[in-house]
Amino acid sequence: MSDRMPRVVGRITSLGELLGELRRPGGILGLVPTMGALHDGHLRLMEEARRGSDILAVSIFVNPIQFNQRDDFERYPRDLERDRALCGQAGVDIIFAPPREEMYPRPMKTFVDVEGLTEHLCGRFRPGHFRGVATVVAKLFQIVRPDRAWFGEKDAQQLAVIRRMVRDLNFPVEILEVPTVREPDGLALSSRNRHLSPHERSVAPALYRALRAGAALVERGSVDAADVLNRVRGEFQPYPEMRIEYAEVVHPDEMQPVGKITGPVRIAAAVWLGSTRLIDNVLCRPGAAA
Amino acid sequence: MSDRMPRVVGRITSLGELLGELRRPGGILGLVPTMGALHDGHLRLMEEARRGSDILAVSIFVNPIQFNQRDDFERYPRDLERDRALCGQAGVDIIFAPPREEMYPRPMKTFVDVEGLTEHLCGRFRPGHFRGVATVVAKLFQIVRPDRAWFGEKDAQQLAVIRRMVRDLNFPVEILEVPTVREPDGLALSSRNRHLSPHERSVAPALYRALRAGAALVERGSVDAADVLNRVRGEFQPYPEMRIEYAEVVHPDEMQPVGKITGPVRIAAAVWLGSTRLIDNVLCRPGAAA
Repeated sequence: MSDRMPRVVGRITSLGELLGELRRPGGILGLVPTMGALHDGHLRLMEEARRGSDILAVSIFVNPIQFNQRDDFERYPRDLERDRALCGQAGVDIIFAPPREEMYPRPMKTFVDVEGLTEHLCGRFRPGHFRGVATVVAKLFQIVRPDRAWFGEKDAQQLAVIRRMVRDLNFPVEILEVPTVREPDGLALSSRNRHLSPHERSVAPALYRALRAGAALVERGSVDAADVLNRVRGEFQPYPEMRIEYAEVVHPDEMQPVGKITGPVRIAAAVWLGSTRLIDNVLCRPGAAA
Repeated sequence: MSDRMPRVVGRITSLGELLGELRRPGGILGLVPTMGALHDGHLRLMEEARRGSDILAVSIFVNPIQFNQRDDFERYPRDLERDRALCGQAGVDIIFAPPREEMYPRPMKTFVDVEGLTEHLCGRFRPGHFRGVATVVAKLFQIVRPDRAWFGEKDAQQLAVIRRMVRDLNFPVEILEVPTVREPDGLALSSRNRHLSPHERSVAPALYRALRAGAALVERGSVDAADVLNRVRGEFQPYPEMRIEYAEVVHPDEMQPVGKITGPVRIAAAVWLGSTRLIDNVLCRPGAAA
């Protein structure tokens, strides 16, 4: 591969020294926070970030405090060599891949809580998850001090939580959003897709189809969220092997359920396929198809 | 007055512009966060900070979210002109005095919680207080981006909370502690002292005397915190007008009660005198008088 391989650093002090050498006044330092196991969705994020940064850092850290199930944490895929090659392909300058003890050298007592936005959707089913996400992102923002950071639309609630944290706590970081990357059949890319059996993989695109069916109703003028959700749930009926964890119509910034649809909304759902949990969401606006 | 008067800015963007003009590479930007109503204790803080900074900023903001009683917030003394003169005397360069809407332009949803250290002492009696303190200090650290920040030992639990927050969230800020400044009779300086009636003022020094009596026991070899606290409480007996809110012997970093004293401890108490609440604390170590 002809790409320049990114520098990999694991120590916070080493990262500080390296950034001190590389940063230029007025230059834009970009950050893409990830948990590794990079796929084409991340590649898209990194490509966008590359265009918007003078120096581009990617963090790779499987953050234990955002996993509410130990098993999910332990089986989360890890492959630093492959990740590094992908980062090289995307033109990343620095990979910050700290060991756990570097990020959490002592029992954590300080947490960042974003209230209201975390009560529904994944927040309801993954207690402590967004506290873990907000806390680790706050740490990464202090450690890296980026000017800009990129996040994927696929984790829309995470994105809303981070946007709110940045505004409420005055982080001088611009948050940028990158659209979800999908397989040709509509399945959103996710590091967890690799856990799907061939049969599970074959039915998984029903998640996106269901959300799109709901969005189409909204776009054709439906204003009642309950009707929209009935339609979404109906799409899953042929697939008894998919267990719906939630399906909700929410305000796109506040992440609170909407009853009557009067402006843009996000339709979001989580489903279980065997022991794998998939999430997806679509943004839509009333009457957009009119 | 011959002192150069500090620049006063109220807007976050104006502060950013001013700091952009003044900051030099490698220069130390110091911050003393205050709620105004400055007294000689603050002056001492500012003098220490002046020696340790190239550019010195003082923030003056009566932070509503750290007051658990509206009345206490409303009657908290405010006197920006006097504060500005005192800051000038101390050689402060910039006063950041934002209006409430600048710090909280929308309902806050994001909070910084420091657990464990906030369960005892003031944390037990002022629910939400340290969450409010940690959150506003996190905001100020983002807005000002100081290299160093100074806090008074008088608010020892606040100092421990902020130190822990800085370490846990990787804030690149050095936290420095300045000893409590006292009146000749031992009363710790506090903006709330001005609420004391002449009689209340005359008995108030009993608080420090009680803590010192406890510390003397520890220094002479007492290892039982209960004995020490009996001694502290005994000192208040001649003053039925002082109501003890708490008196505790705690670990100086963890702020958790200690039973058997085997290392340095902080003895801390809060008392009410009429409608005024006073706090104080002393650090001591076993056998230090031996």
